[in-house]
Amino acid sequence: MKVGDRHYRSLWTEQPGGPVHIIDQTRLPHAFETRVLDSPGAIAEAIETMRVRGAPLIGVAAAFGLALAMSRDASDGSLADHAARLAATRPTAVNLAWALDRMRDRLVPLGPGERAEAAWREAHAIADEDAAINAAIGRHGLALIAAEYQDRQRPVNVLTHCNAGWLACVDWGTALAPIYMAHDRGIPVHVWVDETRPRNQGLLTAWELAGHGVPHTLVADNAGGHLMQHGRVDLVIVGADRVTRGGDVANKIGTYLKALAARDSGIPFYAAVPTPTIDWDIADGLAAIPIEERGADEVRRVRGLDDAGRPAAVAIAPESTAVANPAFDVTPARLVTGIITERGVFEARAESLSALDPARGRQP
Amino acid sequence: MKVGDRHYRSLWTEQPGGPVHIIDQTRLPHAFETRVLDSPGAIAEAIETMRVRGAPLIGVAAAFGLALAMSRDASDGSLADHAARLAATRPTAVNLAWALDRMRDRLVPLGPGERAEAAWREAHAIADEDAAINAAIGRHGLALIAAEYQDRQRPVNVLTHCNAGWLACVDWGTALAPIYMAHDRGIPVHVWVDETRPRNQGLLTAWELAGHGVPHTLVADNAGGHLMQHGRVDLVIVGADRVTRGGDVANKIGTYLKALAARDSGIPFYAAVPTPTIDWDIADGLAAIPIEERGADEVRRVRGLDDAGRPAAVAIAPESTAVANPAFDVTPARLVTGIITERGVFEARAESLSALDPARGRQP
Repeated sequence: MKVGDRHYRSLWTEQPGGPVHIIDQTRLPHAFETRVLDSPGAIAEAIETMRVRGAPLIGVAAAFGLALAMSRDASDGSLADHAARLAATRPTAVNLAWALDRMRDRLVPLGPGERAEAAWREAHAIADEDAAINAAIGRHGLALIAAEYQDRQRPVNVLTHCNAGWLACVDWGTALAPIYMAHDRGIPVHVWVDETRPRNQGLLTAWELAGHGVPHTLVADNAGGHLMQHGRVDLVIVGADRVTRGGDVANKIGTYLKALAARDSGIPFYAAVPTPTIDWDIADGLAAIPIEERGADEVRRVRGLDDAGRPAAVAIAPESTAVANPAFDVTPARLVTGIITERGVFEARAESLSALDPARGRQP
Repeated sequence: MKVGDRHYRSLWTEQPGGPVHIIDQTRLPHAFETRVLDSPGAIAEAIETMRVRGAPLIGVAAAFGLALAMSRDASDGSLADHAARLAATRPTAVNLAWALDRMRDRLVPLGPGERAEAAWREAHAIADEDAAINAAIGRHGLALIAAEYQDRQRPVNVLTHCNAGWLACVDWGTALAPIYMAHDRGIPVHVWVDETRPRNQGLLTAWELAGHGVPHTLVADNAGGHLMQHGRVDLVIVGADRVTRGGDVANKIGTYLKALAARDSGIPFYAAVPTPTIDWDIADGLAAIPIEERGADEVRRVRGLDDAGRPAAVAIAPESTAVANPAFDVTPARLVTGIITERGVFEARAESLSALDPARGRQP
């Protein structure tokens, strides 16, 4: 998508064999800075510190991490070690494991001499497919927004949580792709942007939407229920880090609260995901999806710009204050209206989603 | 309650006829500063800017504002003008109107020469009654925590939103009074403290609890649903700015989301209020309670301490970002287990609450 006059992806290469370029998302929205990553360790660090973030993008980044590893040492040991290191960076998103598995499936059968070139080709293929998948998600989700507009004949109000835009993916985004497409086609759409404490990824969403000219309003995470009670939200669309085969949705902490409010006010609640986000091995999301616990400083310290416009942080609570910081929660399928995928919109239940299962076909 | 070695109320006088001393709550938890307010205008400013905050305390502060006004000019015009000015400072809490009505009822029949002394006496009476009321709320709420402890034989986990502690009242607090009393009696209790964006009043709660030695953990507002899903919350207790005769609860924005989550996980949800917080004129809280919309800068700017330990603020979003900032929401009575008052715990429905109605007795 566009930043100023230039079209960017969230991750790219400028020459064959790397290095990898990223937009440093820890600096946004206050500064637009790119970084050059030239080793698998640098990729792992970028994922852990959330310089690259968002379930689809961390899968793509990990694939490029393996490509960088293969360029240095294409042995079986290197492949296994770097894949394990990259897989350990973030526990909740399934895309990371999916992308690493795909890379390994492609690389293990090859001789070491063939692996580097194949790894780069496969990583680029994953990135390109992600962009194409997100465009398809956008087209399917667009129909939902268009239908709301048809019904209401006024701007459609969509609430989203966290950032599931192009920054979280390679291009387009998941939850935001339908919004961009609606806007591009002249369907008036307004987005309620949850701040998304503690890391404030809503500011990334606001930055993206501003860049694309989509009307939006930033709100504290606490506000969404009130807005829904008063008819000011027509549709909730979020991304997801993992969806179970039965339609439970693991997404950024606080998503579950918005799903409860949407249900209480009769508002449709959708998760938009590429099909690799569906974890076919998990039935009960609440019991089985690991929830990452992140550091206390994410809650205690807030970053922004000081009065002189320089990046700065303030401590809102003393070091002595105990903090818990679960990064994700699980929204049970019963609260989810549907899952928007690149292959269409599916109900959040095993009987519907099983049509997407690449390995097992229809589930009982 | 104690700050260091000294017992403080949140508002006090040191000599008859004022001035009024307050703890400046906009400086907490980063600095403990008191202020001297010597005019009704200074009281109004302190309420508007939330130097004094919390439904019970702003009622008490407004009463002292009228006392300061009567010391200067005890005419009918002065009484009417200052009461109107003070009533306009915050629209959602009913305590403000209640305290001003009580002052007017006391003062209007008197001649101007008697009003100043009577006003100070009445304001002190309201403050002392508030402290006594909160102690009684604490005793009734204590029984709920004690019962949970009896059942579980492990520390009782209470989640609270915003600050309904002694800082929000004169002493003890509403939601926190039962917690302080449980702790004082040796019942092990741990408090999940919601940050409460955008103004982060949860930090006041954490500061209070730390001062009293009550174990607590600060969490982002987004985390509560996840904690409840996983059995880590036994009880939710919040304060309220207004309760309808049918038990709808207007409280700090985000309260409704926690009530939904509590209901979804079968966790009791209580609001703790002095009976003057009940607005007998309102049946439908969602339709009839005015919700204060506060300034965008409360969302855009976050205050804390910089790396050198000095008070500072950072902008998390640019000025160009549109912001909505509703300060309260309404939790429908159907989600409320009970209302803890100084006269006992009542079900959140008209048939139960009507026993408390001073004017009308039992409602049909």
